[in-house]
Amino acid sequence: MNETQNSQIFNQRLPRCATLIEARLDEWLSNSERHGFIPARLAEAMRHAVLGGGKRLRPFLVLESARLCGMTDEAALNTAAAVECIHCYSLVHDDLPAMDDDDMRRGRPTVHKAFDEATAILAGDALLTLAFEILADPATHRDPEIRCALALGLARSSGRAGMAGGQMLDLMAPGAASSEAEILRLQAMKTGALILFACEAGAILANAEAAQQEALRDYGTALGVAFQLADDLLDVHGDAATVGKAVAKDQDAGKATLVTLIGADAARERLADLQGQAVDALAPFGANAAVLAAAAEFVANRKY
Amino acid sequence: MNETQNSQIFNQRLPRCATLIEARLDEWLSNSERHGFIPARLAEAMRHAVLGGGKRLRPFLVLESARLCGMTDEAALNTAAAVECIHCYSLVHDDLPAMDDDDMRRGRPTVHKAFDEATAILAGDALLTLAFEILADPATHRDPEIRCALALGLARSSGRAGMAGGQMLDLMAPGAASSEAEILRLQAMKTGALILFACEAGAILANAEAAQQEALRDYGTALGVAFQLADDLLDVHGDAATVGKAVAKDQDAGKATLVTLIGADAARERLADLQGQAVDALAPFGANAAVLAAAAEFVANRKY
Repeated sequence: MNETQNSQIFNQRLPRCATLIEARLDEWLSNSERHGFIPARLAEAMRHAVLGGGKRLRPFLVLESARLCGMTDEAALNTAAAVECIHCYSLVHDDLPAMDDDDMRRGRPTVHKAFDEATAILAGDALLTLAFEILADPATHRDPEIRCALALGLARSSGRAGMAGGQMLDLMAPGAASSEAEILRLQAMKTGALILFACEAGAILANAEAAQQEALRDYGTALGVAFQLADDLLDVHGDAATVGKAVAKDQDAGKATLVTLIGADAARERLADLQGQAVDALAPFGANAAVLAAAAEFVANRKY
Repeated sequence: MNETQNSQIFNQRLPRCATLIEARLDEWLSNSERHGFIPARLAEAMRHAVLGGGKRLRPFLVLESARLCGMTDEAALNTAAAVECIHCYSLVHDDLPAMDDDDMRRGRPTVHKAFDEATAILAGDALLTLAFEILADPATHRDPEIRCALALGLARSSGRAGMAGGQMLDLMAPGAASSEAEILRLQAMKTGALILFACEAGAILANAEAAQQEALRDYGTALGVAFQLADDLLDVHGDAATVGKAVAKDQDAGKATLVTLIGADAARERLADLQGQAVDALAPFGANAAVLAAAAEFVANRKY
């Protein structure tokens, strides 16, 4: 198949995954008795944080990597939901006035604007906690060894040496990240680690052979760098209405990005290289990997 | 043995447990390469949050309940550390200006005072995440089924229907909790659930028989209520220098507590009843439970 055909499959598969994952998240976030007594305000804030749209790229990557390793969507949905809970908690906390101070997210008021700061902090904490509740649940995989491996991987990728650490570096920037190596490390932690874990998760779920795990790791690593580079280009050249959040924030904050360091043209070239690396990494999966190859193209060329 | 002898054993055992747990927390919180690259500021804020003293009551309960079920301290230390990470993250976030707005904790500046708000939010997030990293780690127990049971129990007790939910209700008070039943529910969630889990954790670690699990659950439930009732009495009658944090905050906020509802004398009577219930629950363990019996006495009569 050629790139256009791959894109068509991807363009059908991404919203299909989003529908599946939103239905599963809606179940986990329902304020029903089986989840215990949840204060209504907290339950609503968690739903606002998670169920307000978004591309659902990370859960899509979980479902697709799982499918490549022989797992059904159904068998991977809880893991995908856990990854999305982590992503959404990070958005809620990053948007807080003490952090990036954003009022809008996905075209809607952020949680602390729709509710208040305290509720936003707690909703983020509760989503973070829920991610591990989901992974530890026997329904997520019958083998507890695999559930533990997923929890360990998610904790490491989203914690102090992963996403949370990356956000710390970002807040300390420009001082903490001015060279290319420092910027790449910051971004590998802040956004790369969770994208990488989403790509690995399918291989973990399927207890896949080492070559497949390695392939998905390489794919996820390239995809994570590409994702952030595209984001930096959008921050410089994007339009707030299309992107759904404020743009030019890095510039305004005087923060160095790869784009400010090497220029937009060189950044676009590198983005094409990264897309190539991501696609090459998928070689062991043959034609089955067409959707993930198209995902790399989408990530490299995204407009929002 | 009589109550005085039990107290003596407890008075030796509590600081001994604190020393053990602080050494283990110090290892987990060291900024060494084996934990990956952690931004120094984040690592320091996490250490400030966790290693600044405290009674270490919850990890003590984990070690003691584990010992009662036949486990060594060493075998229970990681689980105890995970519970303390959750407790400390909750203090960091609860102290934030948007929440309880406290400047002092354990006689030292709170994390957002010693660092800043953004760092405090991230340090709390990273501690929450670290708790699950620790529980998922094979070093915590060789059986992944048990590691998953611990993670599930910790997530449920500290999440939206547990500690985080209780803090939400507390912030919504007095509106959300004015009757005795509502106050008891709020407190069972906000402080009771994690204390209960600490008491259950030993039984989970040891895969103890149902009667032992049940006994530790009953003990932990009574202890949790007693702990909060004693806290409410301290808030009314305590001295800020001894307690190590601001007092009379509930009164100032116009929040109902059991003490404002039934009066201090009735509260003290109830505290004695709860202590009795906690001790009675330990009957299946015989004389081995002397230290936990003394812990109940300590909790009911604590001055700080």
